[in-house]
Amino acid sequence: MTQTTPYAAHVSLRWSDMDAYAHINNVQFLRLLEDARVIAFRDWFDAAGAGDKSLLDEGVLVSRHEIEYRRPLGFRHEPVEIQLWVSRIGGAGFDVAYIVTDPAASDAPGEPPVYAVAETELALYDFAGASPRRMRPEERASLESRLGDRAPFRRRKR
Amino acid sequence: MTQTTPYAAHVSLRWSDMDAYAHINNVQFLRLLEDARVIAFRDWFDAAGAGDKSLLDEGVLVSRHEIEYRRPLGFRHEPVEIQLWVSRIGGAGFDVAYIVTDPAASDAPGEPPVYAVAETELALYDFAGASPRRMRPEERASLESRLGDRAPFRRRKR
Amino acid sequence: MTQTTPYAAHVSLRWSDMDAYAHINNVQFLRLLEDARVIAFRDWFDAAGAGDKSLLDEGVLVSRHEIEYRRPLGFRHEPVEIQLWVSRIGGAGFDVAYIVTDPAASDAPGEPPVYAVAETELALYDFAGASPRRMRPEERASLESRLGDRAPFRRRKR
Amino acid sequence: MTQTTPYAAHVSLRWSDMDAYAHINNVQFLRLLEDARVIAFRDWFDAAGAGDKSLLDEGVLVSRHEIEYRRPLGFRHEPVEIQLWVSRIGGAGFDVAYIVTDPAASDAPGEPPVYAVAETELALYDFAGASPRRMRPEERASLESRLGDRAPFRRRKR
Repeated sequence: MTQTTPYAAHVSLRWSDMDAYAHINNVQFLRLLEDARVIAFRDWFDAAGAGDKSLLDEGVLVSRHEIEYRRPLGFRHEPVEIQLWVSRIGGAGFDVAYIVTDPAASDAPGEPPVYAVAETELALYDFAGASPRRMRPEERASLESRLGDRAPFRRRKR
Repeated sequence: MTQTTPYAAHVSLRWSDMDAYAHINNVQFLRLLEDARVIAFRDWFDAAGAGDKSLLDEGVLVSRHEIEYRRPLGFRHEPVEIQLWVSRIGGAGFDVAYIVTDPAASDAPGEPPVYAVAETELALYDFAGASPRRMRPEERASLESRLGDRAPFRRRKR
Repeated sequence: MTQTTPYAAHVSLRWSDMDAYAHINNVQFLRLLEDARVIAFRDWFDAAGAGDKSLLDEGVLVSRHEIEYRRPLGFRHEPVEIQLWVSRIGGAGFDVAYIVTDPAASDAPGEPPVYAVAETELALYDFAGASPRRMRPEERASLESRLGDRAPFRRRKR
Repeated sequence: MTQTTPYAAHVSLRWSDMDAYAHINNVQFLRLLEDARVIAFRDWFDAAGAGDKSLLDEGVLVSRHEIEYRRPLGFRHEPVEIQLWVSRIGGAGFDVAYIVTDPAASDAPGEPPVYAVAETELALYDFAGASPRRMRPEERASLESRLGDRAPFRRRKR
C-alpha cells in the first residue's frame, strides 16, 4: 500500500490542557485528535462533494481508540501539527491514523519530534434513524484518496 | 493466571461529560478511567503501606491507552462502576485493565451492561528527578495482589 | 427575607480539575456549580411534582454568572459541599446563589472554610419551541420554598 | 477615561465546547476567556519588556469573574474574536474586561454580534513565595496603555 501524504491539521493548545504536572494531559491528546478529525473531515468530505453534514452531523461514532505517548508536550502558543490519514476502510466504518508533531516538521532537518501516535476506529451512524449505516460510494471514494498505512505504533504487545 | 476480583471504583458522571450528541463523550471515558485510577491507587498503595504519595505525587505517567466502546452511555445521576485490575507488571511500569459497567452489576441476573473495555500502560516516574524509575518491592507486592488477565477486548485487529 | 436552609449538594472533584498550578482551576468551579444545580434541581422539582424533565430537558439557560474566589482549593478525595438556594424569582427565570465549602462544615466548630461564593441567573427556555417561556405555577411554588438571601459577596465594586 | 482600542484575541472553538444542547457551553466561555488572557498577556507584557514569565509563570490568580451571556453561540470552524482590555488597575491586581464577538466584527456594517460580555478580577501572585505581591512599575506602565472603560454590562441588578 502506498502511503499518501497525510493531511496536516493545526490544532491550538489551551492553557487548560495542562494538568497538575504542567504537561499537556494524556486525555487531552484525544481531545486534540477529535479537533483534528473535525478539521480534516470538513475538508475531505467537502472536497468529495459529500458535504460537511454527511459525517459530522449524521455522523460518526468512535468505537475504538489506541494511543501511544512518545514524549511529553508542554504548553506553547504555537499549535501542534496533527498528521492524519485513513488507515482502513470497511463497509460500515473506517480507521484514522495520526501522528502528533510540530508544524512544518517535515521541512526541518533531522527527525521531527513525535509526541504521540494514535489510531481511531469509526463507525458510520445515522443519528436520525439511530442505527449504524453503510458507507456511501462518494464517501468511499473520498476516503480511498486518503488511504495509507496503519498507525506506526512502536510496539504491539501481543 | 487466575483472575483476582477486580477493584470496583464508583465514578460520578457530570452533565458536561455529554457531547452534542447527548451521549457521554468518548474522550470523557478516558477521564472517568483517570478518576478510577486515582480512587484505586489510593486504596491499593495505602493498603500496602506504600502511601498515597508513591504513585500520585511522585508519580506515574501514562504511556499508552487502548479503549473499545461497546454501547452508548447517557447521562445519569447514579455513578458508573469501573472495575479495574493490574494486567501486567514490568520492571519500570505496569498495565491496568478496566471494564466500565453499572454498580452492583455482578449482583444482577443476566449479563451486566459493558459500556467500555480499556487498558492503560503506566510508567513509573520520579518527578523530583525528572526521570523514569524502577519499581519498589512494596509497590510490586501491592500490584501482584491485584494481578489478573489482560483486558477482555472483543477483537484484536492485527 | 428569612434565609431558608440551603440545599447541600456534594460534588466530587476530579484530578483533572487541577490546573498547572496544582489548584482546582477557577473555571472548573463553575463546572462544579453546574453539577450542584443538576443534583439540586432534580430534587427540588421532583419534590414539587414538576418532574426532572421540566428544568433539565426542556430546560434552563444560564444568562449570567458571578463568582468570587475566597481561598484556593486543592485536589482531595472527599467531595466539596455546595450549598445553594434560590435568590430571586422572576416571571421567566430565577437566580441561584451558592457557597462552596466542606461537607458537614456547619457541624464543625468555628468558621467553616468558604472557597467561593457565586450567583447564577437562569432563564426558562422551551427547547422544543426554541423560545423563552413563562414560569409555571408549580415551578414557582417549588422555587419559593427554596428562596433565601442574595449571594453573600464580600464586596460589590460599583 | 478614553477607551483605548481593545486587544483582539482570536480563539478557536473546539467541537467539545458544545454541551448536550449543541451550543457552546456557558462554562466553556470562561475557558475561552482564559485563552484570550494567555494570548493577550504574552503580547502586552512582552511588548513592555516585562516578559512572558512575569504574569503567566509567577503569575496571576483569578479572584472574581462576572459574565453576561447575550446570545447563543454554536460550533463553527472560524475562531471567535475576544476583545479585551484593562478595566481597573490596583496596587496588587487589575481587572480585565471582554467582549466575545466575531472576527473583523468592527469592519462589518451594522451592529456586530455580541455573544458575551465579561470581567475578571486578577490578583498578582508570587508562586515561588506563595504570597500576593505588589505591582511592578513596568507592569503598571504596560497595563495603563491598555486601560479602558468598565465592561459594558447591560444591567447591574443591584
